[in-house]
Amino acid sequence: MTALKNDRFLRALLKQPVDVTPVWMMRQAGRYLPEYRASRAQAGDFMSLCMNPEFACEVTLQPLDRYPELDAAILFSDILTIPDAMGQGLYFETGEGPRFKKVISTLADIEALPIPDPHKDLGYVMDAVSTIRRELNGRVPLIGFSGSPWTLATYMVEGGSSKDFRKTKAMLYDNPQAMHLLLDKLAQSVISYLNGQIMAGAQAVQIFDTWGGNLSAAAYQEFSLAYMRKIVSGLIREHEGRKVPVILFTKGGGLWLESIADAGADALGLDWTCDIGDARRRVGDKVALQGNMDPTVLYAKPEAICTEVGRILASYGKGSGHVFNLGHGITPEVNPEHAGAFLRAVHELSAQYHE
Amino acid sequence: MTALKNDRFLRALLKQPVDVTPVWMMRQAGRYLPEYRASRAQAGDFMSLCMNPEFACEVTLQPLDRYPELDAAILFSDILTIPDAMGQGLYFETGEGPRFKKVISTLADIEALPIPDPHKDLGYVMDAVSTIRRELNGRVPLIGFSGSPWTLATYMVEGGSSKDFRKTKAMLYDNPQAMHLLLDKLAQSVISYLNGQIMAGAQAVQIFDTWGGNLSAAAYQEFSLAYMRKIVSGLIREHEGRKVPVILFTKGGGLWLESIADAGADALGLDWTCDIGDARRRVGDKVALQGNMDPTVLYAKPEAICTEVGRILASYGKGSGHVFNLGHGITPEVNPEHAGAFLRAVHELSAQYHE
Repeated sequence: MTALKNDRFLRALLKQPVDVTPVWMMRQAGRYLPEYRASRAQAGDFMSLCMNPEFACEVTLQPLDRYPELDAAILFSDILTIPDAMGQGLYFETGEGPRFKKVISTLADIEALPIPDPHKDLGYVMDAVSTIRRELNGRVPLIGFSGSPWTLATYMVEGGSSKDFRKTKAMLYDNPQAMHLLLDKLAQSVISYLNGQIMAGAQAVQIFDTWGGNLSAAAYQEFSLAYMRKIVSGLIREHEGRKVPVILFTKGGGLWLESIADAGADALGLDWTCDIGDARRRVGDKVALQGNMDPTVLYAKPEAICTEVGRILASYGKGSGHVFNLGHGITPEVNPEHAGAFLRAVHELSAQYHE
Repeated sequence: MTALKNDRFLRALLKQPVDVTPVWMMRQAGRYLPEYRASRAQAGDFMSLCMNPEFACEVTLQPLDRYPELDAAILFSDILTIPDAMGQGLYFETGEGPRFKKVISTLADIEALPIPDPHKDLGYVMDAVSTIRRELNGRVPLIGFSGSPWTLATYMVEGGSSKDFRKTKAMLYDNPQAMHLLLDKLAQSVISYLNGQIMAGAQAVQIFDTWGGNLSAAAYQEFSLAYMRKIVSGLIREHEGRKVPVILFTKGGGLWLESIADAGADALGLDWTCDIGDARRRVGDKVALQGNMDPTVLYAKPEAICTEVGRILASYGKGSGHVFNLGHGITPEVNPEHAGAFLRAVHELSAQYHE
């Protein structure tokens, strides 16, 4: 494998010294970029982009070509590839969120779910990872990812997106055994899926727990964090002679940082409601932190964006252990020039915090 | 005025001894009740219910007639009465959220906004409060309420509901002076509006900061909490020889409880993501706590509802200072019998925690 030309991102996740704070953006390959919209139009739809390794590689690299400041690439895919591979039949209707043809509602439905084989059932993802890794040619590290078991379960039980997770919460409270069986199968699936991505070339992995923050404190521990801990302990942690850092990101999980920091991962993703300096004091030396600018700041003018970047850097303070990011995915309406101003500001304003 | 027959709610807010933990439900007069849907059909639409004091009184009392366990009544109204009285022209389209005919986007728009006179411009609310208070005849205390300045500002600038508060956040970051002027006018308006409600008969007031939890930690302090603090310091705190407790509820504010507890209010509302026992340890003796069962637990069976009520009571522990509630409003799809099981469980299971 080609040596990495820029390993700031991996170094910061392991709290090793860096020259400037590394930065990437969740959903950086996305609809705010005209080149992405063109590729998507050419592919036909979102899932065709994900399922074709050449297209997935093309859109993964687009933000890197536009923004030389980006310190990491992230696999272009969807968190719902696992439920799809379990036989639920994922589809997207124009202007709507994801939908499943088959919805999970009984213990029998859950018992019947297979654990997908990453190479047979999700080979297109493994192919995308290896293609992207080859085309990156050592420019920056490649991040693999998965949804968390709880987050995947909400889509599988609701049949798609939801406002209040009515059916999933009813199953959790009325039939916790069934919910635990579903989450356990998902944790097993995520372990082999992420290990497959690591073997195919992913140099770090992130688990997106997008909906964990909608649980009560007690339910979060039992139904989300416990399964992320299980995943972390099942992952390949070293590959190609290098550590493979794991990032856990629970949106809305700011109240529970101490316990998330104990789950065995190398870094925590933070949404923008946490003060990152407070978060650093709370988790101590255990983990690195990733985040956490409110993505809507990108709707403001570049001066305001720079001010907010400076505020977050100052709050984190001196030293490594911080990967700058947004607190959630970049939104389709953002002006790409504002995203560029954000990325440049991170590098320019952070040098003073590193020796 | 008639003496209160049940003052558990007011006593718990002031941490005075009670026999059982008092309980009410946010949005307890709402669409989950068939009698509410009938009144609404008769009135024609939602705003006609709010603007007619007899209808507002009728629906306020409906849950009390159905559930003898309820320890408080809450004025039936909408948080957007203030922007409407400022001249924005509130309306509701069927199946959609609230909308405004006039949207606020410039400093000039904000400078032109009047501070509404509660008696002239919002007299229908004052009439509703005095009508409900008379009809309650001392059964339980009556809660008045308002939206927080930040929460009201989001609707005024977006022109209605929003997913990411794009325009409001852009104004906050690009033009903080304009945003501060808007919030200051709203704080003044809320003070006279809530004082009007208190003089008309409200025996406690709650400020709903529904969208404060969507701000960054720093922006929350400056753009939401600062204005709630200002409101609290401007409110009438004693009336009819009794303290008028003030409750602040920031949904998603669990990270900031210590600073919210310092804002001068008597109690904090908690959503369900906080553990209430942790919250109690964090705020100490400063304030009472209100909350905090996940409202979706009401989709589960009564046994599961009772288990969850018991867990929250045990987490709070012994002694007064807890008003039981949901962590957010009850939803339209809930079975009214489940709501009844919830309310009964609070009284039955809480007696052991009081002397």
